[in-house]
Amino acid sequence: MIDQSILTNMQVWRRAVEEELAVKFQTQEPMLRTLYEAMRYSLFAGGKRLRPLLALAAAQTMGGSLACALPAACALECIHTYSLIHDDLPAMDDDDLRRGKPTNHKVYGEAAAVLAGDGLLTYAFELLAEAFAEQGGQTGVRLISELSRAAGPGGMVGGQMADVEAEGAPVQAEQLEFIHQRKTGALIVAAVRMGAICAGAKLEELEALTGYARNLGLAFQIMDDILDIVGESDKLGKQVGADAALEKLTYPRVYGMEESKRLVHVYSEAARCALRPLNRDTRLLTDLLEYMANRDH
Amino acid sequence: MIDQSILTNMQVWRRAVEEELAVKFQTQEPMLRTLYEAMRYSLFAGGKRLRPLLALAAAQTMGGSLACALPAACALECIHTYSLIHDDLPAMDDDDLRRGKPTNHKVYGEAAAVLAGDGLLTYAFELLAEAFAEQGGQTGVRLISELSRAAGPGGMVGGQMADVEAEGAPVQAEQLEFIHQRKTGALIVAAVRMGAICAGAKLEELEALTGYARNLGLAFQIMDDILDIVGESDKLGKQVGADAALEKLTYPRVYGMEESKRLVHVYSEAARCALRPLNRDTRLLTDLLEYMANRDH
Repeated sequence: MIDQSILTNMQVWRRAVEEELAVKFQTQEPMLRTLYEAMRYSLFAGGKRLRPLLALAAAQTMGGSLACALPAACALECIHTYSLIHDDLPAMDDDDLRRGKPTNHKVYGEAAAVLAGDGLLTYAFELLAEAFAEQGGQTGVRLISELSRAAGPGGMVGGQMADVEAEGAPVQAEQLEFIHQRKTGALIVAAVRMGAICAGAKLEELEALTGYARNLGLAFQIMDDILDIVGESDKLGKQVGADAALEKLTYPRVYGMEESKRLVHVYSEAARCALRPLNRDTRLLTDLLEYMANRDH
Repeated sequence: MIDQSILTNMQVWRRAVEEELAVKFQTQEPMLRTLYEAMRYSLFAGGKRLRPLLALAAAQTMGGSLACALPAACALECIHTYSLIHDDLPAMDDDDLRRGKPTNHKVYGEAAAVLAGDGLLTYAFELLAEAFAEQGGQTGVRLISELSRAAGPGGMVGGQMADVEAEGAPVQAEQLEFIHQRKTGALIVAAVRMGAICAGAKLEELEALTGYARNLGLAFQIMDDILDIVGESDKLGKQVGADAALEKLTYPRVYGMEESKRLVHVYSEAARCALRPLNRDTRLLTDLLEYMANRDH
């Protein structure tokens, strides 16, 4: 059972992130209006804000305030949103719907969608650099290092490329893990670590949190694959069966449905265990784990 | 006349930047091979490395070493290269040739070209963050702030979006300057400022250098527009007349050819004057100005 208090926390955190993003993504310049509109369209298209929530939960768990981790939380959401816009492009997954709404390129055209993605990606680093411009340069550089490594060629972009290349290819378990750890896992790990870094976590504490995040990321992604098969389109806000249509490499395709469900459970347990060495109240993180691994959308 | 010594300097600097980039853009991971190949293809497609050269010249002018500004120089080239890859996409300028070679998406396909661009963009920040990870966090954050603001929604991405929107629209001088100052100007200004920041330049020195770079950027862009009309395809490595075919907003289209040539001269002189308050040997910067504003390709 998910505790009621985490739901309240999540609501407060989501609002804080969304208010901050709303302030940041404004422009008075008429010639930039379309670009900002396109960026805002996807930023405020009903995302669950899971990565910001993980960052804020990690920060709070390690004794930090909401304010100290808010720039990191917003930067993570910018990166996540850009990746969705580019993934949906005709040249990539060619998706028309995302969270029940037309995808960015369907509304603004392909050129604007490419640029809205580029803008969000670049702004994530601007936001972090500005937040740590006056002081805390070392923390700022560490956060930017975490985020860029997770999102870049060795992380998310690399995972997405391997995913595109694997479409229609023979099923291989090794490839599957490589793709998922980069495509979704890397940013989830970065979210938890960045939140903890904002709160001044020590190296061995970061290690424990990384173990939690890595296992949570796997459970989350397997659940995503499962929902693409058994989920309901209207809850998911996208076409069920989209992965199968593209012959995407998924856990159910490699391991079967029953084994995939078992793996969600195994990785969730591993995530929980990884937190033990922290010797802290980790309820926020375990509740988020529960929420993310047992969702129906 | 351009001094021989700047040409020697340029050769040394280019080699340093290219060697550094060659080391950075390697991977041992088979599943990332295509992505790295696609990024390297455009990084090593015969670029003139003007932005890195400006950064290194500014650093040296302000008493800094080549080594201190090398990460900034490489990051600038990553950003510039990503912008070319995305600009050439079918949804944008739809170019088949760049510097005499097939464009990235012509060789690797559109999906890989989008991702190669995303990878280069993200890696620019990873490179800077890593370079300043151990010490100099405040300098690192300042450089990342300069680069992200120049490249992001308020800078290059915004300029590119305004450019796309202006295609085929009635000619307006105000719009033209808005677009060029962002699309090419912002990154040129960032290059000079970043080099100087690496060398520890003071605020009023940065101001003078910004004046130089802003005027140089305008002269450079007007020359680019002129060359698109009167240049030779084989020297440029791209189709002459491409801007006109897209009904792009260009200086010759707004001001006519003679006035455009006069403006190159006016802005070059303004760039030169802006350097005077520095009270330094600014020959490297004036020679680079000469080279950039009088090129035939």
